[in-house]
Amino acid sequence: MSDLDALIQLLSKLPGLGPRSARRAALHLVKRKESLMQPLADAMRAAAERIRACGICGNLDTEDPCGLCRDPRRDPHVLCVVEDVADLWAIERTAAFRGRYHVLGGTLSALEGIGPEDLRIDALIARATGGEVRELILALNATVEGQTTAHYVTDRLAGTGVTVSRLAHGVPVGGELDYLDEGTLSAALAERRPL
Amino acid sequence: MSDLDALIQLLSKLPGLGPRSARRAALHLVKRKESLMQPLADAMRAAAERIRACGICGNLDTEDPCGLCRDPRRDPHVLCVVEDVADLWAIERTAAFRGRYHVLGGTLSALEGIGPEDLRIDALIARATGGEVRELILALNATVEGQTTAHYVTDRLAGTGVTVSRLAHGVPVGGELDYLDEGTLSAALAERRPL
Repeated sequence: MSDLDALIQLLSKLPGLGPRSARRAALHLVKRKESLMQPLADAMRAAAERIRACGICGNLDTEDPCGLCRDPRRDPHVLCVVEDVADLWAIERTAAFRGRYHVLGGTLSALEGIGPEDLRIDALIARATGGEVRELILALNATVEGQTTAHYVTDRLAGTGVTVSRLAHGVPVGGELDYLDEGTLSAALAERRPL
Repeated sequence: MSDLDALIQLLSKLPGLGPRSARRAALHLVKRKESLMQPLADAMRAAAERIRACGICGNLDTEDPCGLCRDPRRDPHVLCVVEDVADLWAIERTAAFRGRYHVLGGTLSALEGIGPEDLRIDALIARATGGEVRELILALNATVEGQTTAHYVTDRLAGTGVTVSRLAHGVPVGGELDYLDEGTLSAALAERRPL
């Protein structure tokens, strides 16, 4: 296999890049050796060497504990539970949450054979019942797997005195009712807020 | 800027990857250090060091002249002129052409200030009039720029005895007439073939 084919094949393993866009990306890179391909190769090496999962929350960072866990300004009493680091990033972009996180690393799935022992659930229960945490916000996807996981965590924490909440369902900001699915609209009705 | 941000920023410069998919790709890579990120970094380094443009046709290869120019089984009398290496690859995938190529490196564009001297047009004329080439197939995009370039090359070769042809216009194989634009349908009518 040629160098170019090897590059295309590896690029096509990235999410969002099919065979066609992997070829385009490879050409784009080869035409920009100094300005893009070398820096990207260097950035990948640096990331491969230095980025690791935080031992406390599961976030990815060059430091362990990660920057979020070490930040003294963040509220240690509220824990936001997410499936994946990408979800943590999404919540951080809102700048609307100033507590700490816990990354599960996935969701329970009988279909895919993923049980509680495959996720960071024991670590979550230990953190949540350690005394410092008062509220757990389950920011899990509104999928069957996400909701199953939410129920499981809630059950495990029953009777411990920790408040468990979940994200609200409702109409997306800027969304039009006409384009909304029935499930979301029903939830938005049921969770209506007084004005 | 953190290692992860640097990686995301560079990934977002790839065609087809916006900020969101660059984040997804970076996470995907960091989770697969050994199986994907290191091999991809290595493949990019190898490609950056070894791949260069062929001095004859402009194709990208680790050898110069490239594999296609060195292949003695390919017909040296027919030259297929393309804008970009990606177009050369597209034609090679058809396995329907056994001649040689010439990559222009773009198209003439008054708007973007690209003139004949910015493309590999002089090299093309020299190759085409060198005695060996009998036919030139202009496999340029059916855009204004592509057609302007085609006319320019045809003019330059007028009176040299080299046959110049272009790709046929028509209905895509498997295409439905109802979904076709008027230009393509008109061209397909005008270029109809006897059965």
